[in-house]
Order: sequence, then structure tokens, then C-alpha cells
Amino acid sequence: MIFQNENSFEVKEKIENSKIAILPIGAVEAHGPHLPLGTDNYLAERISERVAERTGAFVLPTLPYGQVWSLKNFPGSINISNESLISLLVDMGVSLYEQGFRVFAMINGHLGNAVALKEAARKLYQQYPDFKILYLFYPGTKKVTEEVRETKSSHATYFHACEIETSYMLYLAKEYVDMSKAITDIPNIPASADVTPTPWEEFTNSAVLGDAKLATKEKGEKIIEVAIDNMVKLIEGAKDEINGTK
Amino acid sequence: MIFQNENSFEVKEKIENSKIAILPIGAVEAHGPHLPLGTDNYLAERISERVAERTGAFVLPTLPYGQVWSLKNFPGSINISNESLISLLVDMGVSLYEQGFRVFAMINGHLGNAVALKEAARKLYQQYPDFKILYLFYPGTKKVTEEVRETKSSHATYFHACEIETSYMLYLAKEYVDMSKAITDIPNIPASADVTPTPWEEFTNSAVLGDAKLATKEKGEKIIEVAIDNMVKLIEGAKDEINGTK
Amino acid sequence: MIFQNENSFEVKEKIENSKIAILPIGAVEAHGPHLPLGTDNYLAERISERVAERTGAFVLPTLPYGQVWSLKNFPGSINISNESLISLLVDMGVSLYEQGFRVFAMINGHLGNAVALKEAARKLYQQYPDFKILYLFYPGTKKVTEEVRETKSSHATYFHACEIETSYMLYLAKEYVDMSKAITDIPNIPASADVTPTPWEEFTNSAVLGDAKLATKEKGEKIIEVAIDNMVKLIEGAKDEINGTK
Amino acid sequence: MIFQNENSFEVKEKIENSKIAILPIGAVEAHGPHLPLGTDNYLAERISERVAERTGAFVLPTLPYGQVWSLKNFPGSINISNESLISLLVDMGVSLYEQGFRVFAMINGHLGNAVALKEAARKLYQQYPDFKILYLFYPGTKKVTEEVRETKSSHATYFHACEIETSYMLYLAKEYVDMSKAITDIPNIPASADVTPTPWEEFTNSAVLGDAKLATKEKGEKIIEVAIDNMVKLIEGAKDEINGTK
Amino acid sequence: MIFQNENSFEVKEKIENSKIAILPIGAVEAHGPHLPLGTDNYLAERISERVAERTGAFVLPTLPYGQVWSLKNFPGSINISNESLISLLVDMGVSLYEQGFRVFAMINGHLGNAVALKEAARKLYQQYPDFKILYLFYPGTKKVTEEVRETKSSHATYFHACEIETSYMLYLAKEYVDMSKAITDIPNIPASADVTPTPWEEFTNSAVLGDAKLATKEKGEKIIEVAIDNMVKLIEGAKDEINGTK
Amino acid sequence: MIFQNENSFEVKEKIENSKIAILPIGAVEAHGPHLPLGTDNYLAERISERVAERTGAFVLPTLPYGQVWSLKNFPGSINISNESLISLLVDMGVSLYEQGFRVFAMINGHLGNAVALKEAARKLYQQYPDFKILYLFYPGTKKVTEEVRETKSSHATYFHACEIETSYMLYLAKEYVDMSKAITDIPNIPASADVTPTPWEEFTNSAVLGDAKLATKEKGEKIIEVAIDNMVKLIEGAKDEINGTK
Repeated sequence: MIFQNENSFEVKEKIENSKIAILPIGAVEAHGPHLPLGTDNYLAERISERVAERTGAFVLPTLPYGQVWSLKNFPGSINISNESLISLLVDMGVSLYEQGFRVFAMINGHLGNAVALKEAARKLYQQYPDFKILYLFYPGTKKVTEEVRETKSSHATYFHACEIETSYMLYLAKEYVDMSKAITDIPNIPASADVTPTPWEEFTNSAVLGDAKLATKEKGEKIIEVAIDNMVKLIEGAKDEINGTK
Repeated sequence: MIFQNENSFEVKEKIENSKIAILPIGAVEAHGPHLPLGTDNYLAERISERVAERTGAFVLPTLPYGQVWSLKNFPGSINISNESLISLLVDMGVSLYEQGFRVFAMINGHLGNAVALKEAARKLYQQYPDFKILYLFYPGTKKVTEEVRETKSSHATYFHACEIETSYMLYLAKEYVDMSKAITDIPNIPASADVTPTPWEEFTNSAVLGDAKLATKEKGEKIIEVAIDNMVKLIEGAKDEINGTK
Repeated sequence: MIFQNENSFEVKEKIENSKIAILPIGAVEAHGPHLPLGTDNYLAERISERVAERTGAFVLPTLPYGQVWSLKNFPGSINISNESLISLLVDMGVSLYEQGFRVFAMINGHLGNAVALKEAARKLYQQYPDFKILYLFYPGTKKVTEEVRETKSSHATYFHACEIETSYMLYLAKEYVDMSKAITDIPNIPASADVTPTPWEEFTNSAVLGDAKLATKEKGEKIIEVAIDNMVKLIEGAKDEINGTK
Repeated sequence: MIFQNENSFEVKEKIENSKIAILPIGAVEAHGPHLPLGTDNYLAERISERVAERTGAFVLPTLPYGQVWSLKNFPGSINISNESLISLLVDMGVSLYEQGFRVFAMINGHLGNAVALKEAARKLYQQYPDFKILYLFYPGTKKVTEEVRETKSSHATYFHACEIETSYMLYLAKEYVDMSKAITDIPNIPASADVTPTPWEEFTNSAVLGDAKLATKEKGEKIIEVAIDNMVKLIEGAKDEINGTK
Repeated sequence: MIFQNENSFEVKEKIENSKIAILPIGAVEAHGPHLPLGTDNYLAERISERVAERTGAFVLPTLPYGQVWSLKNFPGSINISNESLISLLVDMGVSLYEQGFRVFAMINGHLGNAVALKEAARKLYQQYPDFKILYLFYPGTKKVTEEVRETKSSHATYFHACEIETSYMLYLAKEYVDMSKAITDIPNIPASADVTPTPWEEFTNSAVLGDAKLATKEKGEKIIEVAIDNMVKLIEGAKDEINGTK
Repeated sequence: MIFQNENSFEVKEKIENSKIAILPIGAVEAHGPHLPLGTDNYLAERISERVAERTGAFVLPTLPYGQVWSLKNFPGSINISNESLISLLVDMGVSLYEQGFRVFAMINGHLGNAVALKEAARKLYQQYPDFKILYLFYPGTKKVTEEVRETKSSHATYFHACEIETSYMLYLAKEYVDMSKAITDIPNIPASADVTPTPWEEFTNSAVLGDAKLATKEKGEKIIEVAIDNMVKLIEGAKDEINGTK
């Protein structure tokens, strides 16, 4: 159900049957020496395909640019403002609604996009109360992640190019990972980073937040499968709701 | 030179050597029964790869959403406003400049994007006079197209899902074309369509502007190769200019 | 039918009878040594009066400022951004609609305004589907211009202060033309001018694109009369449409 | 010194000598049965010509659209938002500054424009501290108006299509006045009109605020000549200031 | 009736009974050596409380930031743009309307806010024609002020930190006044200050426009009581209107 | 150090000595039957005073309006958009910087403001790299809160009008609390509330998220004192940084 491979003559009926559009959204951003700049895009895209299979959803083409303010000064990062991202997503949402979709699930591979996604979702919801818009960033994986990780997290909410994210890539897109370059770099993130604008170059040279060497496919699998299960449940719940079966 | 497959540790030096970023930009839009919604994305992407090879450029991830005002009411189309598109492209351009790129070539597969691309290019140029921004939509192919086509064009500047565009797809992305569904649908586009807002449903049901059945890989090849040659020349010219060798 | 000479007590009924508003829109822009800065204003205004006579339309006061990005660095040019122009035209359109007009024809004397006019027209059309908004820049004159011109055009779409535009002025506003100062200046416009931001000072010192000396009133008359005929037809067509007679 | 009649080859030196641009700005607005919709445009334009003669200034083409919120529901009014007007005037100011002007005098015929003119002036002043921007609406005429008028003013700051404004027109543009249609209509403007949004249809049917029958050319002359003297002084003062002679 | 001291369970019915919200709005701005930076906030707030008592209105929390362009370069001033202020007030108005309020009275202690308040009021009025929005700056006090003042006003519309405003503070908030520091500083405000952007440092060092030493509580009382009476009448009038009793 | 009580003549030197401005920012929002609508304002304000005493900072007047999207449909809530809030805060920051402040600490009493505060801080930081902007919402209180609370939190990040927030009020502003009205209302917040726009009326009628009856002054004191200590440390750290002593 790759949306852009459909043709206009047949897609209308298929939209009516499915009603669910999934948008993978990531970013182009520095991810250390062993992961590609497009890491968040590959993760979002591959998870989206898996979720779509299980929910009968269409996967839209990946939106591969995101808000990477914190890492924008690292080599290779391309930064989009929240304003641009919100504006684009609202436009897209309007079109999707007019096309007949009633669930719009944004599967997000990059934490920095979270603010824009939520804001865009609210704007669309105000305009179309019967439109369910979801913003999904590895939902419900806190517990499994704690269980899986061998090293302490560098930060309460950030994880980046580390044991965890590298494991995701080993499970979902290992062809883009070069474990021979993986490093251990546990930064000391100052408490002030949560309360004042703090470009990451102030506390890391590598953009790796932890021990990437400990990443394994198995760790990734455990967390990602939980994330996918949760996404499927949330999308099914939204579908029930718009179908009035809930 | 797929940009998002690079890693942050090595990309800086490569950017300094290349200085050229190519952005494929297309759209999700109705293209009749035989071509996929993502036709413009596939075309932009494949041409970009070819051009990058010959110019030593990086290919950025495809921006797969565009301004499709005219066809937005056809099944499957997703429309983005000019404002959103301009804003996003200007953000990207700023980032690319800061990353060290000095040529930003937008290879465009969808005519409806032309206004936004030009406006974004001008805004970036005002901000960075030493930044060459190109917006490329099959440049210099007018003559070869006239030679190649067997049917008269439906319109002076539009071509869509017709003999021409279908030939492009047969040459560049034939795995997405289903010629068994190709149709002949030559609309009578009223003169007023050039001077007043005219959604295409006013003159076509199929969104095909011509005789898609006459499309061949060979026709596509002839035009596309001219387009690619011209793009390469224009990018090389821009590179010479920023290098002061011209 | 000069709109601003009407009085408020009588104009309401007249609007109901006519329903057509014509806005001449031009620019203040360098036009070489022999044509005034206001050339595009004079052309738009005089054509508008002629078209209004034949269609029973009101002529609104000329909007004399336009988007002259390409020539903004030439002495005398005054440049307005697309954003400002669009915003102003949308405001005007809303007022005209509320006043009872149902056809809003923008007669444009300056190519640089074309993008803003089309965008404003689309925004108004989205808001008022029964409002016909036309943007008219010498429509349907391609053929007659080819026939009339003695020199080759410098560019596929631009013409400026040349054989053609000077002929327009000789026919419509010769009191502002000083043919004794007319020059021949055939620039070599690089192919890149169509694909990258290119202020015209990069290829011309005079802003004249051709041989102004060859201009004659007769040439102007031939083209302008075709343009006026076409405008009249397009406006009549729009009127029929809003009156449901088509 | 009609700016749009100048040519690009000679205007540069003239701008350097003069440095002063005058923009007449008015509106299209209901002015009762005896005055035309374009009253404010004619007044602004004719005063501008007189002021230009005495100050060596250039007169730019009249901006004939303004903010007429209060009267926008009267037949014939065309309303522009403050936002659009500010944006356009700031664009113009930037261009005028870049062209070499150092005094930008907006001669305003319509009180409703005052807010936008002042705001635009402040924005330009912030950007270019050595740019003098003036917004002139019959400056310094309070006393002479009190002396001249035979009827009490309907309102502390508004006057409209009344004894006073009609006198202005009789002095400056009598060819557009039809005194045979002049009426006496002294509305009772509620005190609340100064403190809450109050479209004028709430207190007048005619849009005439007073006794238009008492208007005479002589009354107009007395006030207008004071206004012009004051404008000349203010512009000369601004010129002295930018020339450092003050 | 301090709105923020109400609780959510009981406030709904109270809003239905009252329907009137009063917003005190002031500024943080230089007021000479004897008055505090928050002078306009204290005045707006205390007057609001008095007016609320007499009209059964709710007093909202004071909005303590305003547009102080003219004095923004004086120590202690905090300046907000008109755009920000308008946007905030429109948001607030929408919420108040949705909460059931039908009269929104902005009691303004700072003249510089007047433009933003009026513009916000118009935008809200366009959206909700049955919503009465009032912007109140010492209404109807011109005559009493003339009677009370011993010194001539420095300017037709401005008064600041002078005999008048200091008297207001002595009557309403004397605990914040230090009369031992009061000064006499009668600036010569140039005529051009009304027609060109003029930061006040161009004509005053103290920001006092007059003789603050002459201020008395009694003078303040006389004017303020007139202002309050007029505000009460205007709000009662608005209430009658929305209740259809007028 | 109440900023608005300072006078303009003395404040300049004091700013130079302190360099720190604290903005209390809250909201008007439903807080159940026992807490006032202005709860977040009172909390922000009282904490700000305490922090200011210990850091030598100025306390600016409280900004009493915030983004309360989630609760905007509850009686008494007044909602401001993120856009308006960001715009206002950026204006304020610019003014504070120009006035000589180098630390701008926003002490926030309402979680809904967090997005706008962070975005405004980033915009200001981009403009003034030597300006430290802090957004502080009970920093570093996670652990102590876990220790103090007797009931389980209803949600990972939200707390509202519950055991915790009521305790804050009992410690800091008990005169506004009516414990006789305190209720126990433990809602079942669906998992989807974190991933799709969910106005709180979907899961609570009271807006109380927990057991307000268990609130005590002592619990409030324990958490608030930790919060204040942390704020003081963060502000001192910022001050050291701008003073180059760190």
C-alpha cells in the first residue's frame, strides 16, 4: 500500500476502504560516524511499512526534512523551522482530509519534530473535528527500553546515535550501519541544557550520546516490536473511533 | 553520492570538495490510469541521480510534496501551498549554505512547483549573493520535444501523463508504468484556462492531456538525455562561477 | 465608466448592471532612455479604457506599483514584493465581491506581476467560487507579434522597451515616447537566466531588449488590437458564465 | 517632476539632486451624492503636485487604494487592510531608499490611512535611521478650519464629504464636484463611535457628515493653502536634516 | 469580581449573569524620576476595579506590557510591537466570547496601545458581530482636563508623567509616587513629531512633559471620576445593546 | 526588586548591576472547585519573588495569559495561541536585551506554555548569542515529588489541581485555596492522549487530575524549595557565564 505507486483511477475506492494515511517523517541530521545522516528517515519509513501492513493503511512518501535545531551546526544536518514544518503538515492534512482520509498518522523518527507535529495536529483537529491525527514517536517503549539497555541513558528524553538508536538501525536498516566505526562517547549533559537554548556542540563533538558499540539487532527488535504493536493499537483505536465503533 | 547515506564525520570534507547539492522535488498527483501518483517524484529522483554522477554533486532526499492546485480535486493528489513550499525551501537553502554548499540545484519533476522554486531561489540569492540556486524543469528540451512528439501538444506549456511524460517514465522508471491501461484523451483546453483559475476537472476527467498510448522508451530517452545534458552544463556553469573560474 | 468618478448614491445600481471591474496594473520601472518609468502603467490604463468601453465594465484606478525584481537595481525602478501585491489584490477582490462585482479583470502591463496576479486570483476563487477573476497580459498575441516584428526576440517570454513595447507606446501613449533617444541594444541573455536568479544588470546596461528604433505606431496597433479583442472575448465569456448564459 | 514620466537614463542624477519623493495616497470611498468615490485621490494628488513644485520633489504615481473600514459597506468603497497597506509602503520605502531618496513624504487624502502610514514610517525608520519619512494629512489646519467653517464639526477628528472636504474639492478639483447634488446631513454620532468598532452605516445613510451646501472654493483655498505651506515647511525641514544643515 | 480568583465550577453561571469582561492594559515605560515604570499598569488596574464595581463586570488580570515605541530607548521601558499586541488581544477576545462574555472592555492606561486595541477590536467585531469590544482611554475628559490644569499642555494629544498623569497617580496609587522627586520639564515638541517617526529622546531627557510639581490628588480625582463615569455609561450602553434593551 | 516600581532615572544603573530579569508567566485556566483560575499566575509570581531575592534579579510584571489549549473549553479558561505568545516574548526579550539585561529567566507556572517559551528562547538566542534565556518549570523536582506524593500520578508529565499543585498553593498562596471544596477525581487518561489532540473534557469533568484532598502545605514546601534552589543555581550559572566567570 505504497500510496505514490497507486494510480488516480483506482485510488479513490481504496482510500474509502482504508481511510488511514501514514506519513513517515524523519530528518537529515548528524548521527555520529557509524550511522547515516538519514537514520531517522530510514527508521520512520521501515516502521511505517510494518505498521501499514498490519492496519491496512497507505504509506505516503517519506517527508525527509525535519527540525534539527540542536544539531544544525554538525556536519550534514539540514534544519527546517517549526513554522515551515507546521505549515507544510497542515497543508498536507487538509488535502488528505479532502481526499477522504480520516486517520492521519505521522510516524516520526526524529524527536525534534515532535513540537511541530503536535501543533499541526491541533490545527487540523480544530478545523476537522472528525479527523484523527496521530503523532507517533516510539510510543510506549519506555519500560522495554529500560529493560534492554545496558548503559544508563545520557538524558531523560533524548537518545541519539547510541546503544538504543543504533540497535533500531541494526534491526530495521542494518545495511546503512557501519559497526566498525561505532564509538563510545558518553557526554556530560549539563542540567542547564533542559532550560536554556543549548546547541549540542556545547557538550558533544560526536553527536553520539552513549555507547553505540553495545547496540545489537536483538535489542532493537525488542523495542521496535513494542513500538509497532503500540502504533497498531493506537491507529486501530483511531479507526474505530472514526467508524463510530468505539 | 546519496547525501543521507553519508556520515557526519566524513561529510564535511566531501561537501567542501563538491559544493553542489541537488534536490529532487516532485509531487503526489493524479497521472491518469497508467502512471502512478508519484510519477513526478520518480522522474525528479532518477534524473537527479544521473546528473549527480556527472557533476560530482550530492543528491538530497527527494522532497515528494508539491503545489498541485490545478489537480488537487483529482483522486490521490496532495496539495501544498506555495507559501509552505517557499518557506521550507528557504530554510533548506540556509542550512545548505551554512553547511558549505555553494550550488543548490532543484531538479523539478512538476511544473506546478515552478513559481515556488523561483521565489525561494530569489529570497536565498538576496541573502547570499555568492550562492547559486538553480531551478531546473527539463531545460532546453523544447526543440527536441517538438521533433519527437507525434501528436500535437494540448497546451503551450502544460504536458501531463501524455505521450511525452509517459515516455519519460518508460525511459526512467518503467517498472511503475502500466501501458495496458494507457489511454488517449485529448482535452479541449479553453483559452480562458490561461487567464483565470481553472481546476483541471473543468476540461478533463482523466488528467491525461494527450495520447499516452504513443509513448515509447525511445522518445523519453531522446528528450531526457537532452535535459540531462543541459542540466549538467548549467550546474557546471554555476560551479565555475562560484569557483571564480568564469 | 471611470469608477472613481462615480458617486456613491448612483454607483450601486450601475455595479449591478455591469458586474465587471477592470483593474489596470503596471509598475514603475526602468524602460531605457526613450520610454518613461511609468510605461507599464500607461499601457495598462489605456488598454483598460478601451476594453471597458466595449464590455460595459468599470475601470478602477490604476495600481501603479508592481514586482520588478529583475530590474530593481536600475535607476527609477520601485519594487514591490509578491507577498505585498498578493495581499493587496486579495483585499481588493474581497471588497469588489462584496460591492456586487462578479468579474474582476486585472489588465496587466508588466510581466513581473504575473505570478502575484495568478496567486491572488486563485485565493479569491477559493473563497468565492462564483467570482471570475482574470489576469490578462496581452493574451493571444503570440502569433501576430511574430508576424509584426522585424527583429528576433531576445528571449522566449520577455520583451522590454524594445521594438514591440515601444510600438505599443507609440500606438497608445506616444506623448510619453521620445523616439530620438531610442536605441538598439540586443543583449545576449544567457541560458542560465531562466534557471537561476539573474538581475538584469548582469546582461544589459540599458534595460532595452532589442531594437527600439524599429518601433512604429502601426506595429503597436496590430498587436494591441488583437490583445484588446481577446480581452473583450475573455471578459464577455466570463460574464456569460456568471450570468449562467454559458 | 512627475516621477513616472522620467526615463531611467536621466533619473539617477535628478534623484541625487532632489532626494525627495512624494507619494499621494488616497482611497476609493463613498463621499455622498455630490463628490466622486475618488475624492481623496484627487485631493492627495493635486496637493502633491503643488507641494512638489515648491520643494523640488518628485511626485510618485498616486496609490489610489486605502483603508476604508468605517465606510466599506457603502456603495463604491474598496477597502484595503492595514496589513496590506503597511507591507506595500514598506516595500516602496525600501526601494526609494535604495534609489537614493532620503525624504519620503506620504501626502494622505484619507484619514483612515493614518495608522498604516505611521506604522510603515516607523518600520522604515528603524531600518534606515537616515531616512526621513513623513505622513501628512492636512497638517496644522486646525485653527484655520475653525475660522473658516460656518457649521459645527460633527466630530472631533472626522470630517467627510462635508462643508470642509467639499470646499477642498471646489478649490482643487471642482470638475469632479456636482454642487447641485450637495446635501445637508448632520448625523448624531454617538459617543461610543470613538470607543467601539462602529461602521458608519450605524449613524449615517449618506456618508456626508455636515452641510455640504455651504462649501465654497474660497473656504477650501484658505485651508488648503495653510496645509500646503505647512507641508512645504515640514519637507524643507526634513531635507535640511538629511543634508546636515540643521 | 476579580476573574482569576474565581473557580471553574462557579464561574460559568457568573459569566452568564455578568457578560462583561474588563481588561486593564498598561505598559512598562519610563515616567520620569517620581513615577514608577508601571504607572500605566497601576492606573489601568485601579480604574478597572472601580468601573467593575459599578457595572458588575469581571476584572481580568492586567496585561502589563504595551507598545512604547516612542519611549523605548529610555531606561526601563519594555516595548511590544503592535503585531504581537493585536494577535494576543484577538486570541483573548475569541476565548472570552467562547466563554460567554459579550462585552469586552479594554481599559487602557497607555496611549501607545490605542492603535493595537482598535485594530484588535475591529478584527473581533468582524468575526463576532454580536460582541461589543470597547477600548477606553480616559473617555470624555478633555473638558474637565482643560478646567483642571494650571499649565498649558505640551502637546495636543500626549500627556506624560506631568501635572495630569501625576495627579491621576496621586488619586489612585499615591503609594507609588515620590513627589519629592517631581520635576518641571516643559519640552519644546517640534511640529514634525506629529508627522515623522520621532523617538522622544529627540526632545526630552526626562520623559516628563510638563510640570509634575503641580500635580494634586484633587486634580486627579476630578478627571478620573469623569473618566470612570463615562466608562460606566459606555459599558452600560454596550450591555443594553447586547441585551437588546436598546 | 519589583521592576515596575522602579523609576527611569535610577533603573539604568541597577540593571547594569543586576543584569537579570525574571518574568513570571502563568495562565488563566480551570483548576477545579478549590483552586482559583489564576493558580498558575500566583505560583509563578510568588516563586519569582523568592528567586529574585536570592539572585539579585528584577521581577517583571507577571504575564498572566498562556496557552491553555487542552482546557480551553472549561469554564473560565482564556487561551492564547503559541504564535501570539512567542511573538510577545520575543519582543520583550529584544527590549530587555537593549535595556542591558543579559539573563532573562521565564519562571513558568503552566506546562502548556513550555513550547512557546522554548521557541521564543531559541529565537532570541539566535539573535543575541550572549543573551542567556531560561525557561523554568519546577526544574529538578521529579525525585522529590515522587517521595512526597501519596497517590500515583495520573500522567507521566501532567499534574493539575491535584495533590501536588494544591500543595504548592497551600505553601505559596493559601489565601486563594478553599480546601473545603477539594475533591478526589482520578481520571483514566487514555494512552491516546499523548499521541492525538485530546481536549481534557474527553477524560475529566473537573479538571482535577488526582486527589486534591491529600494536599498539604508541607508537601508543597518540600517540592517548591527544591525547585527554588534549582532555579537559583541555574540563574547563578547563567550569570557566571555571561560574566565570563565560568
